[in-house]
Amino acid sequence: MSAYNFQRRVFAEALGTCLLVATVVGSGIMADTLTDDVALSLLGNTLATGAILVALITIFGPISGAHFNPAVSLVFALKRQLPRRELALYIVAQCLGGIAGTVAAHLMFDLAPVEASLKVRTGGAQWFSEGVATFGLVAVILGGIRSDPKNVPWLVGLYITAAYWFTASTSFANPAVAMARSLTNTFSGIRPLDLPGFVLAEIVGALCALALMNWLLRQPSANA
Amino acid sequence: MSAYNFQRRVFAEALGTCLLVATVVGSGIMADTLTDDVALSLLGNTLATGAILVALITIFGPISGAHFNPAVSLVFALKRQLPRRELALYIVAQCLGGIAGTVAAHLMFDLAPVEASLKVRTGGAQWFSEGVATFGLVAVILGGIRSDPKNVPWLVGLYITAAYWFTASTSFANPAVAMARSLTNTFSGIRPLDLPGFVLAEIVGALCALALMNWLLRQPSANA
Amino acid sequence: MSAYNFQRRVFAEALGTCLLVATVVGSGIMADTLTDDVALSLLGNTLATGAILVALITIFGPISGAHFNPAVSLVFALKRQLPRRELALYIVAQCLGGIAGTVAAHLMFDLAPVEASLKVRTGGAQWFSEGVATFGLVAVILGGIRSDPKNVPWLVGLYITAAYWFTASTSFANPAVAMARSLTNTFSGIRPLDLPGFVLAEIVGALCALALMNWLLRQPSANA
Amino acid sequence: MSAYNFQRRVFAEALGTCLLVATVVGSGIMADTLTDDVALSLLGNTLATGAILVALITIFGPISGAHFNPAVSLVFALKRQLPRRELALYIVAQCLGGIAGTVAAHLMFDLAPVEASLKVRTGGAQWFSEGVATFGLVAVILGGIRSDPKNVPWLVGLYITAAYWFTASTSFANPAVAMARSLTNTFSGIRPLDLPGFVLAEIVGALCALALMNWLLRQPSANA
Repeated sequence: MSAYNFQRRVFAEALGTCLLVATVVGSGIMADTLTDDVALSLLGNTLATGAILVALITIFGPISGAHFNPAVSLVFALKRQLPRRELALYIVAQCLGGIAGTVAAHLMFDLAPVEASLKVRTGGAQWFSEGVATFGLVAVILGGIRSDPKNVPWLVGLYITAAYWFTASTSFANPAVAMARSLTNTFSGIRPLDLPGFVLAEIVGALCALALMNWLLRQPSANA
Repeated sequence: MSAYNFQRRVFAEALGTCLLVATVVGSGIMADTLTDDVALSLLGNTLATGAILVALITIFGPISGAHFNPAVSLVFALKRQLPRRELALYIVAQCLGGIAGTVAAHLMFDLAPVEASLKVRTGGAQWFSEGVATFGLVAVILGGIRSDPKNVPWLVGLYITAAYWFTASTSFANPAVAMARSLTNTFSGIRPLDLPGFVLAEIVGALCALALMNWLLRQPSANA
Repeated sequence: MSAYNFQRRVFAEALGTCLLVATVVGSGIMADTLTDDVALSLLGNTLATGAILVALITIFGPISGAHFNPAVSLVFALKRQLPRRELALYIVAQCLGGIAGTVAAHLMFDLAPVEASLKVRTGGAQWFSEGVATFGLVAVILGGIRSDPKNVPWLVGLYITAAYWFTASTSFANPAVAMARSLTNTFSGIRPLDLPGFVLAEIVGALCALALMNWLLRQPSANA
Repeated sequence: MSAYNFQRRVFAEALGTCLLVATVVGSGIMADTLTDDVALSLLGNTLATGAILVALITIFGPISGAHFNPAVSLVFALKRQLPRRELALYIVAQCLGGIAGTVAAHLMFDLAPVEASLKVRTGGAQWFSEGVATFGLVAVILGGIRSDPKNVPWLVGLYITAAYWFTASTSFANPAVAMARSLTNTFSGIRPLDLPGFVLAEIVGALCALALMNWLLRQPSANA
């Protein structure tokens, strides 16, 4: 793969993560502004996030793989499908893209570019939620690729739609997006202090899914 | 099929049913916590359940068939597409997976692992609802396989999305999931005492659909 | 085509229309029971109807064409794709199936089998709405078949999802369903007295779409 | 391409834009009438718009390309995929179709055919929103065509579903639709005075997306 392509791949990761975070943060602000019913706010947030994921993964998948997520890039690096020397740059691009997404959402809604979130998200139940959320996300991605790679954009969009509701943490499931969400003091924010717990739980969940799906999806051996 | 494969198939049934029940129970808790409007709670519950079904059936279908449902496994056993000696183990896996799903949802929302439901769901209208719900589910699965097996994940997700609203029982349509839902005293629960009526109605509905669709989908005979 | 097949085709039309009406009427009752917000009721009603349409058209399409709608059957008869002697039986099956659907919904919700609706739906704006709704439905079906027949279940489900909201009548767009809905005094009902206006508007809309799409979709002539 | 075909292409652009605007305006009126919760109104408006876009682009795409949007037609003209002499007629058809859509929606809801909107939508945050919204729309269209043209109807429908929520302006992203929406004093309206700012922002966003995606999607050169 050429250096030129690598530039574009990294840029696609940054732009995709930017648009993803702009959607997560922006739709949270919009929903929160329009209603007092928190379930309705989460519904607007869910619908926007699930929909944009399908679109972004479809169009950026052929360029960069459309990870938009350091935990997912880590999994592909461990599976030797992402060269290890590229992993670090993917993660940097995802984090910078995510921050740009928060800034873009804030500018669209006439807020200061960034502000630290005050929303507390911590404790064992929240961490377990993030572990389950990321376990499920990676399981769906790996299982989806095995069934048919064309399904993956839909499966991820649908999975996150469900996970926003079935986990107590509303399923961040993404260290770069979590970091970007620590910079908005709106509906979708998370206190910077609570980031390490979330990121750690996400990585543990991703690694568990990698191990389990490696076993579950392995081709049957001829003489087993 | 190898014994080794059978292990993985049974595990896939357990894991899939676990994630399905975690979604049904967890999204019910989330929705109920966020709003006082029961229609909105059902909407969040519906959206999450329909979405996760598409994802789970797509990724586990190639491994185990992705029944996640004793009534569906029974239908495939009667159609001789699931060896009868495997039926019992499928059902055990579905029930154990379902219970694990309730436990997972409770831990994510910081509740006791299990608690018996107090929600009354009984009477002729409820039983008729469950019969219709499961009739429709099996009809959609059998008709979907005939049209194109790739459609089945979507058709089941869409059917359950509709059935949550058009049946008075919100369409359990699944004995293993019903049993798992008897262990949560939250939005999606059902009193353990009311389980037998639901399970019986579901089996009757499934068998009616099997008989009817066998006739309806039979290939035209050459000289009929 | 054999007489035997014709039996099954007519039965598929009846069963499909039955399940469609059970969904429309049942989800209306469910939604109306759970909330005081009429927009939320319409949302539940919409979601269920759009979802079941995709499922029903996919599974019954290969058998009967999955019209479930006398206006649609009329269009295919005029296009000589449904033998004219079969048209009458299709319409009878759709009407009887629709009535059975209302009865099924009522029994699921513990109501009397049928009751005349008292909901007034009349006047020029309502009739224009039904004309537009049915025009759009037939245009989407004919255009969808031209693009790819596999798209049609999705296109119809999505079109009706939109039409529930963009027409003042909530888009009945179907004489058999309208008749069946005159027998329920719940959310989705229509006063029997108002049926003729709706049915006439629907037929006019369907015929306009047939004429227009015949022109628009005609293959380019070689020397035009 | 024959003159005859050109007639039908222009007509398809007009009819498609008409049905799109009728949906946007009509569903806004419906939602606003049924509820006091603005988030719920936006949800109904979103659902209808996203759904109809998939249907309309699928059926009119093979005829005219299904732009329904002067900014999109401009992009294809600059890419030399729409003859420049046809661009002006496409835009006229889109504007006239859009106005007809507003009139149709008003007649369905028993309102005067047109009325100037009084809804203020102006200022830097709104313009930036429109720029981002149209940037994303054009990026999704160009990236979607590269991935698989069959995906485009879904991607556009999903993108607009998200963009209604993540932009402060609810994502008009379309000069012809914006103009048509200036003629309705209902939920989806925009003050005629505010049109120039929106249209300019939309064109800037579209051109930025064209330039960026031209670079990002360019086939890797052999010796880069």
